[in-house]
Amino acid sequence: MRIGLLGCGTVGGGVLEICRKRVPSLEVVRILTLPGELDDPLVTHDASVLLDDPAIDCVVEAMGGDEPAHGFLVRALENGKSVVTANKAVVAAHFAEFMELAERHGAQFRIEATSGGGVPWVASIEKARRVDEVTSISGILNGTSNYLIDAMEREGVDFDAALREAQELGYAEADPSADIDGIDVRNKTIISATVAFDSLCRSAVPTLGIRRLTKGILDALAARGWSLRLLARARRAGERYAACVEPVVLSAQSVEAHVPRNFNLATLEGGTVGELKFYGQGAGALPTGNAIVQDLLDIEAGVSSRYATRETLAWDPSLLGAAYLFATKAPLGEAARELPGAGEAAGDASSRRLSVVFGLDPERAGELARAAAETDPETFVASFSPEAAASLEGLL
Amino acid sequence: MRIGLLGCGTVGGGVLEICRKRVPSLEVVRILTLPGELDDPLVTHDASVLLDDPAIDCVVEAMGGDEPAHGFLVRALENGKSVVTANKAVVAAHFAEFMELAERHGAQFRIEATSGGGVPWVASIEKARRVDEVTSISGILNGTSNYLIDAMEREGVDFDAALREAQELGYAEADPSADIDGIDVRNKTIISATVAFDSLCRSAVPTLGIRRLTKGILDALAARGWSLRLLARARRAGERYAACVEPVVLSAQSVEAHVPRNFNLATLEGGTVGELKFYGQGAGALPTGNAIVQDLLDIEAGVSSRYATRETLAWDPSLLGAAYLFATKAPLGEAARELPGAGEAAGDASSRRLSVVFGLDPERAGELARAAAETDPETFVASFSPEAAASLEGLL
Repeated sequence: MRIGLLGCGTVGGGVLEICRKRVPSLEVVRILTLPGELDDPLVTHDASVLLDDPAIDCVVEAMGGDEPAHGFLVRALENGKSVVTANKAVVAAHFAEFMELAERHGAQFRIEATSGGGVPWVASIEKARRVDEVTSISGILNGTSNYLIDAMEREGVDFDAALREAQELGYAEADPSADIDGIDVRNKTIISATVAFDSLCRSAVPTLGIRRLTKGILDALAARGWSLRLLARARRAGERYAACVEPVVLSAQSVEAHVPRNFNLATLEGGTVGELKFYGQGAGALPTGNAIVQDLLDIEAGVSSRYATRETLAWDPSLLGAAYLFATKAPLGEAARELPGAGEAAGDASSRRLSVVFGLDPERAGELARAAAETDPETFVASFSPEAAASLEGLL
Repeated sequence: MRIGLLGCGTVGGGVLEICRKRVPSLEVVRILTLPGELDDPLVTHDASVLLDDPAIDCVVEAMGGDEPAHGFLVRALENGKSVVTANKAVVAAHFAEFMELAERHGAQFRIEATSGGGVPWVASIEKARRVDEVTSISGILNGTSNYLIDAMEREGVDFDAALREAQELGYAEADPSADIDGIDVRNKTIISATVAFDSLCRSAVPTLGIRRLTKGILDALAARGWSLRLLARARRAGERYAACVEPVVLSAQSVEAHVPRNFNLATLEGGTVGELKFYGQGAGALPTGNAIVQDLLDIEAGVSSRYATRETLAWDPSLLGAAYLFATKAPLGEAARELPGAGEAAGDASSRRLSVVFGLDPERAGELARAAAETDPETFVASFSPEAAASLEGLL
C-alpha cells in the first residue's frame, strides 16, 4: 500500500521508522514537511503534490491542530484516499464530516492513534461492540496529567515542581494548558464515546482539569485511603448517554491509582464480557506510530470501520451523578459538608477547606465550581468514584 | 454460520445464551450433552450426529479435559469444520496436531477462550506481532489463585480459609490442584508463548505453585513493601526463548499487586509498542462465552490465524534468570542469604526461615525447591521481579 505522510515530527517520524524497518508492505512514497524540517528525497512542501497524487492509496496525518489538517483530510477523502490520523483535535471537531466523506467516496477513516497512543483502545471498543452493548467507558487518557499526579504522590513534590520535571523530560509542553485543563482528554472522550455508544458525542462535554491540584489536597486524600486521577468518564443507559472529563477521587487500592508515570489505562464495560482494561504508552513516537501502522494494516486487510455521524442518543448528565470534593475558600451553601480533620490541606492553601457535596452531576458540579472560582480562583473540584464515596459514610 | 456445541455446562451455556440473545448470525444447531444435562430440542448424546453433520460449519468445544475432547476435535477438523475451543489442557497437549489438521483441511482453529477467559489476550498478542517481535509475555492468568492471594492479603486470612471461601463462591474446585499448583497457568503459558514467539512452546515448562503460601510469608513481604502473585513468564531474545510459571515477589506499588479478586492481567512487550497490559474476567460463563463468540465472529469475517507447529527457537532458561525467595526449614547451602528480621514469618512456620538465593533461573530454582522439600515439605519458593529485587540491596 502506498502512503503519503502529512507531517514528520515525533509521530510521523515513528510511522516512517516502523514502516521502513518492520512492515515493508507499507511504502511511504511522499512526505509533506515544513521547509528545512527533514532531508529526504520523498519530501515535498506542497500539500497538493501529495493529496492529489493518484498513486497514493492512503494518507497518514500527524500534523496536529485544526487547519490546515482539516482541509487536507477533506481533500484526501474527496480524492478517494483512506485516511489514518493521530490528530484528536481535528477528529473531535469534524468527526461526522470525515465519516460522511469517507462513506461517500468509498474510503476508510481510522483513528486508533487519536486516543490512548499505543494502547489498542478504539479497536478494542469496536471489537467489544460486536457482541455487547458498551455501557460505560472511563480511563486515564492523558499521560502528562498522570505523570504530574504520580510525581506529586510518589515524590511528594508540588504541582509546579512536577510540571517543570515533566517539561524537562518532554512529557509536558511549554504551555501545558491542553493537558492540565482536560482539553486533550475531552477530545479523546468525544471520540471514544462516539465509538462506544454508536452515537455522535456532543462537543459540549463538561470538563474539569487539574491546574489547581495541590500537594496538600493529595496528602489529605492519601490520609483517608484515597488517590486521584484525571479521568474520561462516559455512560450509556438505554437511549440516554453522558460524558465528562474530571479529576476523580479513587480508592488508593484501585488499579488506576497505580498507573505510573505517563502511562494510560482505559476501561470499558460490556454486558457479557464485563470490565476490560487496557494499559500502555499513551504517547511517544513509536507507540503512537505503532497505532497508526495497525490502522494501516487493517485498511490493507480490508477491515472496515464505520462510526456514527449523528447524535442518536439523548444527553442526560444525571447518568454520571456523583458526590464531589471541593477544595475552596468560597462558601458552598448548605449542601456542602466539610471533610472532618481536613485542616492539613491548609498547609498550602491557608483557609481553603475540603468539602463534599452529594447528589451532583458533572454539569451542576461545573456550575458550582465556576461560582466558587469567582470568590477563590484556586478552587479545585473532583468527583468521588463509587468505591471512594462508599468510604465517605464513615467519615462524615 | 451454523454451530455445533460440544458441552453445555458453564461455558457452553454462556456461548448458547450470547449467540441467541446478541448475535443472531451465529446459529447453534446441535448440542452434545450428557444424558439429563439439558432439555433442549437441539440436544444429542451421540457425538457423531454433530461431528459428521455436513450442515455444521464450526464446532465449539467447551467440555474440558483431554479425551474424548481431543478425538472429537480431530474428527471435526478432518471433516473440514472450523474449531473454537476453551479447553486449555487439550490445546496445550495437542496444539501442533490441531494446527496441522486445520491447515490440511482448510479449517480455522481458534483458542482465545483458552487463556485469560474474557480478556482479549490471544488476539492482542497476534495483533502486536503484525508490527513487533514480542519479546516477553507475563501475567496473572489464573483467577482462582489470584482470589486466594488477594483474600489472604486484604482480609488477613490464611490459605485454608481463603480456599474454603473461594470454594463456597465457586471460584475454586473441590480439588483445587490444577489452580494452586500452577498446572492451569502452565497450559495457558504454553499456548500464549507459542502464539507470542511463533514457535511451538515445549510442554516441560518449569512450574511452581502457591500451595505452600502462608499468611506469615505474605506479612513478611508486605513489611518490606512487596506483594506476591502467581505469574506466567516467558521471554524471547533472538532465536532463544524460555517460559515458566511461578509465584513472583512484586513491588506492592505495581499494577499487578492491585488486581483484585479473580481478575486476570496479562502483559506483553513489543519493540515499538512497548508494554501493553490487558485486564478482565479470566473465567465465568459470559466472559469466556464472549471470547468464544469473538472467535466465531472472526471466522465468520474470514480472519485467518495460523500458529506454529514446530519449536524453532532454542530453549534457554537463563533468559528468566532471577533472585529467588525460599521459605523453608531446609538448609540451602552457602548461596542463600537470610532475609534479616524475617522472624515474623515464623508465626505460622516455627523455624522456617526466609532466604534469598541470587543468580538462579526457573530450572535451577525448581531443583533447589525439590531438594529442600525433601527435608521440609512445606517449602515455598518464589522469584523476585526486577523491581522487587532492586529493593533487596538495601536489605541484605
